Amino acid sequence: MHFSDRLNSRIQDLRAPAVVGLDPHLHRLPTPLRERFEHLSGDARRTAAAEAVLEWGVAVLDGISGVVPATKPQVAFFEQLGSAGVAVLEVLCQEARNRGILVLLDAKRGDIGSTAEGYARALLDDDGPIGADAVTLSPYLGRDSIEPFLARCEQGKGLFVLVRTSNPGGGDLQVEHTAAQGVAGWIRAWNAERVGECGYGPVGAVVGATVPDEAIALREAMPRSIFLVPGYGAQGGTAADTRPCFDANLGGAIVNSSRGVIFPTPEQVEIYDADPAMLVRLRAQAFVKDLRENVR
Amino acid sequence: MHFSDRLNSRIQDLRAPAVVGLDPHLHRLPTPLRERFEHLSGDARRTAAAEAVLEWGVAVLDGISGVVPATKPQVAFFEQLGSAGVAVLEVLCQEARNRGILVLLDAKRGDIGSTAEGYARALLDDDGPIGADAVTLSPYLGRDSIEPFLARCEQGKGLFVLVRTSNPGGGDLQVEHTAAQGVAGWIRAWNAERVGECGYGPVGAVVGATVPDEAIALREAMPRSIFLVPGYGAQGGTAADTRPCFDANLGGAIVNSSRGVIFPTPEQVEIYDADPAMLVRLRAQAFVKDLRENVR
Repeated sequence: MHFSDRLNSRIQDLRAPAVVGLDPHLHRLPTPLRERFEHLSGDARRTAAAEAVLEWGVAVLDGISGVVPATKPQVAFFEQLGSAGVAVLEVLCQEARNRGILVLLDAKRGDIGSTAEGYARALLDDDGPIGADAVTLSPYLGRDSIEPFLARCEQGKGLFVLVRTSNPGGGDLQVEHTAAQGVAGWIRAWNAERVGECGYGPVGAVVGATVPDEAIALREAMPRSIFLVPGYGAQGGTAADTRPCFDANLGGAIVNSSRGVIFPTPEQVEIYDADPAMLVRLRAQAFVKDLRENVR
Repeated sequence: MHFSDRLNSRIQDLRAPAVVGLDPHLHRLPTPLRERFEHLSGDARRTAAAEAVLEWGVAVLDGISGVVPATKPQVAFFEQLGSAGVAVLEVLCQEARNRGILVLLDAKRGDIGSTAEGYARALLDDDGPIGADAVTLSPYLGRDSIEPFLARCEQGKGLFVLVRTSNPGGGDLQVEHTAAQGVAGWIRAWNAERVGECGYGPVGAVVGATVPDEAIALREAMPRSIFLVPGYGAQGGTAADTRPCFDANLGGAIVNSSRGVIFPTPEQVEIYDADPAMLVRLRAQAFVKDLRENVR
C-alpha cells in the first residue's frame, strides 16, 4: 500500500496529524531508570543505559499508542550508545510496528549512489535490521543521492527530504542560497509520477513550524507532498504557526513534538518517574487537542 | 595535538597524501569469507556477515598499515548489518588506532543542535563508542549544525565538511544554487581562528577529483583547509585531476581510493581470496606510487 495512503488513513482514524519524537536524552529518563547507569562509565554505562532506554521507549510507545499515528526516533540518540543503542533502536522499531505505530526514522542520511543504497537497505528494507516506514534525508549531494530511496517507494515506503529546517541556521543555505526552492522543485517532480489515492505522493518535505511565512510558498510549490513539521513546542512554534503547512482541507501535514510529550514539566516529574507511559499518554493527548483546536 | 598537525606529520612520514576507504561491499569479500553467510538470511545472515567483515577489515588494515596514514570507513556499509555491523565498526576503529592509522569516519551527518551533539559524542569523543579522529559532515542545516563538532577540534579532532562532491548530481545544489561557495566561506572563517603549526586548520573540505576546474577556485577560497578528495579511480578521477586540490608545495590534500585498493581486479581474485592483506598492500602501494609520480 502507498505510504501516503497508509499515513493518511491513520491520521484520519485518530484525528491526529501528529507524530511524537522518540529522543532518549539520557539525563531526562525517569529517575529509577537513570539510577541504573549514571554511576557507570564507558562500555558498561552504554550497555546499562541502552537497557534503560529500551524500557523507557516501550513506555513511550505504550503511551502514544492509539493517540498518534506515528513516532519519529532520532537515530543520533541511539548511536551515542554504540552498537548496544542501535540494537535497542531495532527492537523499538519492531515494538512500534507491533502497536500499529508508523516509524518515521529521523536519520537525515544523504550519500552517493552505492552508499545511499546501503543506507536504504539499513533503514527501510523490510528484510533489513530496522525496516522503518519512512526516513528523513538530507539533499546536499543532489538528486542522485535520493534515487536509491525513491526506488523503495514502490514497496510502500516514504521519504521526508529536508527542505526548510526549523533551527536558527536553517536559512544559511536553504534561503540565502535558495537551496530550499531547488529541492522543492525536485520533490514536486518526484511526487507527480507517484500520487496515491489520497492525492499525495511518497516524498514528503521537512518544513519547520518556525517559518510560517515561507511555508505558504513551499506549500504551493509542493502541492502533493506531505509536510513533516518540526519546531512545534520546545523550538518555539505554535499550533497556529503550523497552519500554512496544511492544505485547504487541513490535510497534507504531520506535526512533530518531542520534548513536550516524552518528558515531564518540573511539576510532572513525580508522576513521570512512577508511570512514564501514563504521563506520555496525557501529554500526547494534550498535544493532539492543541492541534485540533488551533490548526483551523 | 592539533588534528591537521597529526595528519600532516603522518602524510609526510609515509610520503603518502592518501586515504583508503573501508567499504565492505558484501559481494566483494574474499570467497572463503562470503561462503560463511551467503546461504543465510535475516538476522543470522547479518551476524555471520558482520563476523566476515571484521576478519576482512583487519586484513585491510594490516595491508595498509605503514603505507597510508588513514582509513575512511563508510558507515552505511556497517549499518546495513544492523547493530552487529556497528559493533564491528567499533572494533575496526580500535584496530586502526592500534596500528597508528587515523580514522576519518565517512558518516556525512548533519542535524540540529542537541542532535548534532549526540552524533559528535557517538562518533568523535574518545570516551564514546567509536572515537574517530575526524568525521565527514553534511552542511544542509546551516552553520549551527556544525558547531557542536567544531567544539571537538579543541580536543584534537578534525572535520571534513562536504563542499563539492564527486557524484553526477553533486552540482544540483552545490553549483546551481552556489551552496559550495557558501560553505567554503564558513570553513575559511572557522579555520582562520584555529590554525595548527602546519598552517592548516581542523576543518577540512570534501572536494571531488571529478571537478578539477572548480577545485582551483575552492583551493583559493579555503587556503587553510585540508581537502579530502574522493572520486579518484572507480569514479573516473586521475591522480593529475587531484592536483588543483593540493597547495603549491603539494600539501593540504589527501586523496581517497576505496574499490581500487580494497578489492581485486578480475585477474587478482585468486591471490585476494588466499591473502587479502597482501593484495591490499600491493594495491595501496601502487595507489601511493601513482600519486607520487603524477601529482606534481
